[in-house]
Amino acid sequence: MSSPERDFVTAHTDDLHADLDAWLRIPSISADPAHAPDVAASAEWLAAALRRTGFPTVEIWPTPGAPAVYAEWPAEEPGAPVALVYGHHDVQPVDPLELWEHPPFEPTRVEGPDGPELHARGAIDDKGNVAFHLLGIRAHLAATGRTSPAVTVKLLVEGEEESGSPHFAALLQARAERLRCDVVVVSDTGMAAPDVPSVVTAMRGLADAEITLRGPAVDLHSGSFGGAVPNPLHAMATLLAGLHDAEGRVTLPGFYDRVRPLSDRERELMGRVPFDEAAWLAGPAASRATAGEAGFSTLERVGARPTAEVNGMWGGYTGPGHKTIVPAEAHAKITFRLVADQVPADLGDQVRAWVAANTPDGIEADVHVPAGGVAPCASDIDHPAMTALLSSVAQAFDTDADQVLITREGGSGPEADLAGVLGAPLLFLGAGLPTDRIHSPNERVLLPMLYRGAEAAAHLWRELARVPFAAR
Amino acid sequence: MSSPERDFVTAHTDDLHADLDAWLRIPSISADPAHAPDVAASAEWLAAALRRTGFPTVEIWPTPGAPAVYAEWPAEEPGAPVALVYGHHDVQPVDPLELWEHPPFEPTRVEGPDGPELHARGAIDDKGNVAFHLLGIRAHLAATGRTSPAVTVKLLVEGEEESGSPHFAALLQARAERLRCDVVVVSDTGMAAPDVPSVVTAMRGLADAEITLRGPAVDLHSGSFGGAVPNPLHAMATLLAGLHDAEGRVTLPGFYDRVRPLSDRERELMGRVPFDEAAWLAGPAASRATAGEAGFSTLERVGARPTAEVNGMWGGYTGPGHKTIVPAEAHAKITFRLVADQVPADLGDQVRAWVAANTPDGIEADVHVPAGGVAPCASDIDHPAMTALLSSVAQAFDTDADQVLITREGGSGPEADLAGVLGAPLLFLGAGLPTDRIHSPNERVLLPMLYRGAEAAAHLWRELARVPFAAR
Repeated sequence: MSSPERDFVTAHTDDLHADLDAWLRIPSISADPAHAPDVAASAEWLAAALRRTGFPTVEIWPTPGAPAVYAEWPAEEPGAPVALVYGHHDVQPVDPLELWEHPPFEPTRVEGPDGPELHARGAIDDKGNVAFHLLGIRAHLAATGRTSPAVTVKLLVEGEEESGSPHFAALLQARAERLRCDVVVVSDTGMAAPDVPSVVTAMRGLADAEITLRGPAVDLHSGSFGGAVPNPLHAMATLLAGLHDAEGRVTLPGFYDRVRPLSDRERELMGRVPFDEAAWLAGPAASRATAGEAGFSTLERVGARPTAEVNGMWGGYTGPGHKTIVPAEAHAKITFRLVADQVPADLGDQVRAWVAANTPDGIEADVHVPAGGVAPCASDIDHPAMTALLSSVAQAFDTDADQVLITREGGSGPEADLAGVLGAPLLFLGAGLPTDRIHSPNERVLLPMLYRGAEAAAHLWRELARVPFAAR
Repeated sequence: MSSPERDFVTAHTDDLHADLDAWLRIPSISADPAHAPDVAASAEWLAAALRRTGFPTVEIWPTPGAPAVYAEWPAEEPGAPVALVYGHHDVQPVDPLELWEHPPFEPTRVEGPDGPELHARGAIDDKGNVAFHLLGIRAHLAATGRTSPAVTVKLLVEGEEESGSPHFAALLQARAERLRCDVVVVSDTGMAAPDVPSVVTAMRGLADAEITLRGPAVDLHSGSFGGAVPNPLHAMATLLAGLHDAEGRVTLPGFYDRVRPLSDRERELMGRVPFDEAAWLAGPAASRATAGEAGFSTLERVGARPTAEVNGMWGGYTGPGHKTIVPAEAHAKITFRLVADQVPADLGDQVRAWVAANTPDGIEADVHVPAGGVAPCASDIDHPAMTALLSSVAQAFDTDADQVLITREGGSGPEADLAGVLGAPLLFLGAGLPTDRIHSPNERVLLPMLYRGAEAAAHLWRELARVPFAAR
């Protein structure tokens, strides 16, 4: 199914290669203060590229941390829908450097089994995902013969996503009027496999807790007191052993109360996503078995179900040899991944109630659940904007909209803030793959996926113009 | 009941004070290599003090670690019984230093509710217990008008007890001929309370294990893998939560098979030991409740029953904030206190079998149980030497021998080696109290207990001369 959009993209892939190559050479690592000038240079590069693409308004928005880039290209038609693209221009650190096959900031083309790949830090997360929009909007204009897009396209590309977006919510609130939109298009995710058109429909939220159990006032001689007073390490082991029941369900009271169940359609579409569990286990996981909540597939467990994971546990003597003590304290750190419509702020009471109900006599518990957390977010798969997205992706993959599968992203990001502050539905359009090694050495992007991303974006601006968004 | 022994002790307490004060100023911490010269100085000080006391033979015995002190004062009578006193001149580390009310190596006299106390590291464990023998043997000679003791008195005071006596068994074997004796008098324990004459009749043994559980090859992103692969911290919590059953019994297979039950007489004598559980909890334990094996009293739990104590547990992220990982590994250290007739060498198989039976799919376990350990030991409470000890303690407390209660020491030491290598029965004569905070900040000795220890020792040399030991 050729299309003017595809023809334009195919004829201009060199532009995409040149843009991405130049941008990826800027080591915009937001976590490392030494790279702050690079993050600033990355914002400047993007701003210049957006101006060159034709965006009439391009601004760099400072924050107390790294700068964000904002651009706007209004549709000529009064009342045309407004779409806001979200992405980020900062990248993860590169250590361990010795595991990279090519220098992380010298983009290197490699012929892979699924087509040409480009290896570099940020190749897909998230510079590749942002860069395809530069070509996509040009394809949209060329294919439709327009001089401005059929919907008003805004872009907000932040510089601190890999550092937890500490100033993003405040930026959204401060700039809410400028950012007003009918729909948010998040370009920071991917698809299930190279030949499998799919869209992400949700991201998980996050909350964390730290638990301290205290027994005796000081470490005690285990010969004099052991076996006769409560040991906080025993209490912590028992507490954490009970964090999940025999079915792998989290035992916090009320934990599942607000969980929006997967619809039959979602489960059916997720169930069709090809997934090689053995390869997944043997891959980056290097894990020996699956485990988790009974009644759910691995993809559902990591994407669509809330989880509780003990991330750290410590107490007593941890040096060489042995020390015969009943320790005074035990500690644990737990993070919870949340799904719509769980509320991070609920976790404080849930964790405290759970700890209180499971702390034995003679042990005092201290629970710290920081305010905040990350809210989960989900697309409404029945929204007409979702229909436009599915149609756009289907065209880029030469298939029908009902052949586009859905996946869920297990990680957490600032997307819920976008939906919450701006009051707009979320769509996810990304060109990444589970095999792209984001956050790891040898991150790469499959170039044909970027071309499809650009084409899907070109279709999307056309399709969204027909969506009857509610009046703002 | 005045006695010449008591009169002498009472007239010479200043000698004991002066000796102890000088010795306690030497920070003989065997665990810290930086203090090796102090441990050597401690041995030299004791050797000089023993010569000054009158021991005709005093030697410093080197070991591959810290030196031991040996002294011998033969009885004039051919065939007189031979008693070997055991103690140690090294002390525990002092951290956390900020919790000491007085500098740990500046002995400080404090008036307490039960009489004058001396605060210092080693005040009772074990310099106080050894020092009372310097005065005790003088009191014995003065009271009996002898120029040599009624039994041959040997002393062996080692320098590595607080480091697990790693070279002690070899020293005993190498010097077995010199150490030949009819009875061993261990002076490294204590009594039930200031006004309660009692003797220890057993010490527990010790074995230790370190367990590592491994899941994924590297720490994994909890958003991508959490809830779908086994978490070694969850597995460790579940494993350790099952170390004890609902009755507080250790669940290792075969753990109780060789345990010698308490006799009715022992339970009766132990049951008469006054024990203020609330005060015990409020004391050095500063613990909030008792806990332990069902069907046994607190004193039985800490003295007469075997236990398993998790001393340390660690894995994953333990720094500030949170880190969203499924960690690769979890670790735990466990020590087991053993009672007669358990065998430390049995624990390796028991721990391995228990871990193997409780490790979930996808987790690999590595169990390290060092060879060795410490054997438990027990006195024969019907031996005539025990009668002599009970009589001596009774006299020091102005009471009758059948009023002397028995207790059991929950800790572990090289005493089993003494009994095993030297083939002699064990007696325990010590002046410590459960409230002395040994191994903790503000260790102290109650000075009137030391005077009673000296008097009991003086009586003991006289009483033991009458015991018909079997021919060697």
